[in-house]
Amino acid sequence: MKSSALSQLGKRIEPPSISWLMHAALSKPNLISLAAGFTDNDSLPVSEIRESLAEILSSPRRGQAALQYGSTQGDVSLRQLTSRHLARIDGELRSAPAYSPERMIITNGSQQMLYMITEALCDPDDIVLVEDPTYFVYLGILQSHGIQARGVSMESDGLNLESLESVLESLKQSGELRRVKALYLVTYFQNPTGTTTAFEKKIAALKLLKRYERAAGHPIYLLEDAAYRELRFKGDEVPTALAIAGGEDRVIYAGTYSKPFATGTRVGFGILPEPVFTAVLRIKGNHDFGTSNLLQQLLAHALKSGRYDQHLRELRQRYARKAAVMAGALRKHFPTSVEWADPEGGLYFWAKANGVKTGRRSRLFADALANEVLYVPGEFCYANDSTRRAPNSEMRISFGSASELNIRRGIERLGKAIWKNSHGGN
Amino acid sequence: MKSSALSQLGKRIEPPSISWLMHAALSKPNLISLAAGFTDNDSLPVSEIRESLAEILSSPRRGQAALQYGSTQGDVSLRQLTSRHLARIDGELRSAPAYSPERMIITNGSQQMLYMITEALCDPDDIVLVEDPTYFVYLGILQSHGIQARGVSMESDGLNLESLESVLESLKQSGELRRVKALYLVTYFQNPTGTTTAFEKKIAALKLLKRYERAAGHPIYLLEDAAYRELRFKGDEVPTALAIAGGEDRVIYAGTYSKPFATGTRVGFGILPEPVFTAVLRIKGNHDFGTSNLLQQLLAHALKSGRYDQHLRELRQRYARKAAVMAGALRKHFPTSVEWADPEGGLYFWAKANGVKTGRRSRLFADALANEVLYVPGEFCYANDSTRRAPNSEMRISFGSASELNIRRGIERLGKAIWKNSHGGN
Repeated sequence: MKSSALSQLGKRIEPPSISWLMHAALSKPNLISLAAGFTDNDSLPVSEIRESLAEILSSPRRGQAALQYGSTQGDVSLRQLTSRHLARIDGELRSAPAYSPERMIITNGSQQMLYMITEALCDPDDIVLVEDPTYFVYLGILQSHGIQARGVSMESDGLNLESLESVLESLKQSGELRRVKALYLVTYFQNPTGTTTAFEKKIAALKLLKRYERAAGHPIYLLEDAAYRELRFKGDEVPTALAIAGGEDRVIYAGTYSKPFATGTRVGFGILPEPVFTAVLRIKGNHDFGTSNLLQQLLAHALKSGRYDQHLRELRQRYARKAAVMAGALRKHFPTSVEWADPEGGLYFWAKANGVKTGRRSRLFADALANEVLYVPGEFCYANDSTRRAPNSEMRISFGSASELNIRRGIERLGKAIWKNSHGGN
Repeated sequence: MKSSALSQLGKRIEPPSISWLMHAALSKPNLISLAAGFTDNDSLPVSEIRESLAEILSSPRRGQAALQYGSTQGDVSLRQLTSRHLARIDGELRSAPAYSPERMIITNGSQQMLYMITEALCDPDDIVLVEDPTYFVYLGILQSHGIQARGVSMESDGLNLESLESVLESLKQSGELRRVKALYLVTYFQNPTGTTTAFEKKIAALKLLKRYERAAGHPIYLLEDAAYRELRFKGDEVPTALAIAGGEDRVIYAGTYSKPFATGTRVGFGILPEPVFTAVLRIKGNHDFGTSNLLQQLLAHALKSGRYDQHLRELRQRYARKAAVMAGALRKHFPTSVEWADPEGGLYFWAKANGVKTGRRSRLFADALANEVLYVPGEFCYANDSTRRAPNSEMRISFGSASELNIRRGIERLGKAIWKNSHGGN
């Protein structure tokens, strides 16, 4: 039998970039990974979760409720708590409707929400506008479904609005605008660049999308991925796109408790307008008819008891310290030709090694691996978009999982590899 | 804006049958639901899970590992335990390869496995052969993806092989065989009929599929859904299709710990041959990069500590008792014109109310609802297959979640409604 029975998706889907990295790391037991998007192991709230679960499972009645199926949409109490939490950190700029728990679906991390939204909106050959660079697993979702990603360039406070307009205009000219379904933005401490999108930019981007809707013949959604939102350790809160007046029929919001609480508990959520909400809710029913009720009860309990907020305060202090350690090491060990911005939150530095190639086949990557340190080559984060040449001299460097000692050591090792390649020497 | 931005799937996907039932039940606080596929609340292993979680989270090191991301494929230890558990109850008919943990992926219940397998194998207009009737949520997955379901008739020990052959032959004649990707069988205490497929039938079905592969031009998989397998309370174990000699390159197995342990912990698994394995693993990465590690550790701990086996023994006794209560009530309250078989496991009776329509628009359904009892109309479980007329005088009646008292009361109420409609009077 020569031919496979796989679907188009089954044939098309490529291995995730991350598996290539993990494979590269396999034979290196002393490797320091600055590549993984893992959170800090020591930060994980083991005792808080043990106590919360013990309380939930302390009475048969309450325990049974947590161990039974819940609803497909998700636990009402968790949705209400999440809605209030969001509206509060958005400064209650807007009254309840945009944040309504009725518009919310609980998912297995925000990743599942991104997947289902894409299923609900896009057919093969449809187009999603993405930041350039963007979250590479989302690019994988698009790739597997045969959906085109079109890059919009970035600047220090989020996407470049002129670039967005020019991309929309050129799609209009080429008659492809009817295939454009959404603009995907990672708005807080973006993965990979660490950039946070200014609220004014969200307003302007949504206005631009609306201006092109007539030519598209259908709504173009602003899909806001706020996965890192809670991990701010510096600077002021920026409201979500849900706070945009009149935006609630075009904004889709994806959030998560995985990163800020515990990655081993996969609980995320989305807030969606109709008709996307109903389509995604039905898709969720087909995926798994609802996220684990036990995990949902755990999160609701952590939020209600204040353990979540307490943990978040500690977590922010921890990441602030680790980011400072990495910033210090970068200044000490990297040539001045390498540029980066200090992030105000999240898990990543994004370094531009001007003039030095960083890609998977680069000498730098090989040298870094030989020095037992791993980073994410920036090229992984650029869409396969033939309208521009993707840069290949960038690196995503994470301070999430490595210890402070290993951050220092890892940056020192990486710095040596960069120096070597900058000077063309030995 | 008249037009929606939804994808073909987003536009096509229908509300799940179950939501219609839940809606019908909303205004009836005293309703006894014999419709839900929920497990018995009192059976849920609250203290076992409390103890297991306390042990897992008792040390920072072990707790942190459980609260961190795991791998996309799933925890090695859980996969090994599952592999051994399966091979053991299959009577170790076959040596390790077919059950290898290397071929296993852990999922959010077996539902997610069914979804991803379908994504990996089927394009719109492809065909999956299903039992007639079958699990209605699987029909929903097919419907949403524009995949055709073709029914194969059933008999007391599983699918009717002549019907399978005749369906395959007619698809060959019509040139549609190249669209056939799989035969989907719910092999243990089938949802909805309670039927268990004889091992010999699995062998014969696989042989038939292989015979038609040449004309199809690609493999046709036997997709075995064993969701209820562990819930046997009577009769002898029947090996899975994994035990078929030479079958491992064509058998896809989907199992779960949700039903036998706790539905609020969504942990299932699949065992898959290449190239389906690799496609599904990549899809899993895009869905959620792995099932909650905490839940996986919980299941592994329950299996290792013997708590799982202990719980299963108690659960089987409980369901045996409840099934006997329901059988007694059926004999007492149903007219002799109604036929059913006593199940040897699972959660369901399947009753044929010969001559009485049971559908959602039937008088019987309305009368049952007026009497405050709910069942699943059999018509929900039949594929939308124009080559035959679907029966509409059957009911799926569950003894899973209702108490013994409510099983008696519910069957009495349902019996009254059937009597009324059997005699045309009140």
